[in-house]
Amino acid sequence: MRYVLLKLSFDGRPYHGWQIQKNALTVQQVLQEALAAVLGEAPPIKGCSRTDAGVHAIEFCVSMPLTGNISCESLVRALNVHLPQSVAVKSCCEVDEDFHARYSVKYKRYLYRIWNSPVRDPFSDGLALHYPVHLDEKSMEEQAQQLIGRHDFSAFCAAGGSVEDKVRNITEYTACRNGDMIELRITADGFLYNMVRIITGTLIDIERGRIPRGSIGEIIESGDRSKAGFTAPPDGLYLEKVIY
Amino acid sequence: MRYVLLKLSFDGRPYHGWQIQKNALTVQQVLQEALAAVLGEAPPIKGCSRTDAGVHAIEFCVSMPLTGNISCESLVRALNVHLPQSVAVKSCCEVDEDFHARYSVKYKRYLYRIWNSPVRDPFSDGLALHYPVHLDEKSMEEQAQQLIGRHDFSAFCAAGGSVEDKVRNITEYTACRNGDMIELRITADGFLYNMVRIITGTLIDIERGRIPRGSIGEIIESGDRSKAGFTAPPDGLYLEKVIY
Repeated sequence: MRYVLLKLSFDGRPYHGWQIQKNALTVQQVLQEALAAVLGEAPPIKGCSRTDAGVHAIEFCVSMPLTGNISCESLVRALNVHLPQSVAVKSCCEVDEDFHARYSVKYKRYLYRIWNSPVRDPFSDGLALHYPVHLDEKSMEEQAQQLIGRHDFSAFCAAGGSVEDKVRNITEYTACRNGDMIELRITADGFLYNMVRIITGTLIDIERGRIPRGSIGEIIESGDRSKAGFTAPPDGLYLEKVIY
Repeated sequence: MRYVLLKLSFDGRPYHGWQIQKNALTVQQVLQEALAAVLGEAPPIKGCSRTDAGVHAIEFCVSMPLTGNISCESLVRALNVHLPQSVAVKSCCEVDEDFHARYSVKYKRYLYRIWNSPVRDPFSDGLALHYPVHLDEKSMEEQAQQLIGRHDFSAFCAAGGSVEDKVRNITEYTACRNGDMIELRITADGFLYNMVRIITGTLIDIERGRIPRGSIGEIIESGDRSKAGFTAPPDGLYLEKVIY
């Protein structure tokens, strides 16, 4: 039996996230259907994370066993024929039996895109947060440096998650601007429920003076979700890189 | 009477080009409808070019007379409320009475985007040409330098245009790569029917060995459309900049 790692890219707009659900279309479901069409039956597949409805992926990883003789290259080609335009398999490679797309993750990087102009962008509907008031991305990057390190991020976690241990290690936070598009990138060994979206909302609230500058350390220490900022919408969020 | 210049941006996918048509939705139509909703009646508007069905604009210019007391700023805001998500007015400024969005143009720059990867990009459907075989963008840029200058571009003009004078002055051609996305940019004082798309197809055909390297000068001189390459699809084409 071979085991493989598939790397996908998907536009999250048509989907209710990754994980299979009753009565709602998910990326896992369309991938399983494509696998069933190509292989006869879909093997059990493991995704690297549960993305929310409307969240995108530039790189999303899936591990699974692979029976039969199909080559990795042929599998990629055949899956792309069966997948909808909004999902693409970028690569497939063989991995060890004990590799798990989720539990083997060392670091993940998320990108959050903000279209920061008074006028909306026709090309970014559902693909970036439109924020009309000017934001200083270098100031956001500076404020975010207090996030770096191993902390209990309970204050940046939405209710409803089942995870007990809320300690995560954020290793990098960068912000850059490309014309009117701000790109925020965060790397950590793991993320809590809505964590990137709450961090984004908190940084925006700091820029707008709703939360004092320099207070991210205190918010982390408080462990109090109500002290952090709003939850930015899923539109701007992309899983960008998974490091094993 | 005031005269104004509006700068628009639009995703061309839902539209049959700029110019108003019977039985097909165009950008001019939706702009006229928004103007009528805001001003009571739509003034006569002039677009900077006739873009084809499916072609996009990062910057498209429109000139028109403006009656009433509405400020440029309020007009932008009000139009964006009435326009569909795929069209945005970016700015409005007053111009002289003799300004004409089309006839006053000095130079225009078009961008052509090619997603150059064996695997399609879920975010570029209709927004870039997917070309799976590797292209060397620096070689394309080098070949394109023979286009520079004032030439009769009949060989790069589709049949069906009504223009007699086919002499245009191409001032710059650049190519760059951003990961898997190739961006080709061409600046000229004017463009013939399908000219950018035929130039793009010709450069691809040269890279694939279907047209000899170094033959663009001869193709121009021949004036023969059949010697140039295929017409690249509208998906990757963007009007990027208009210089008055």
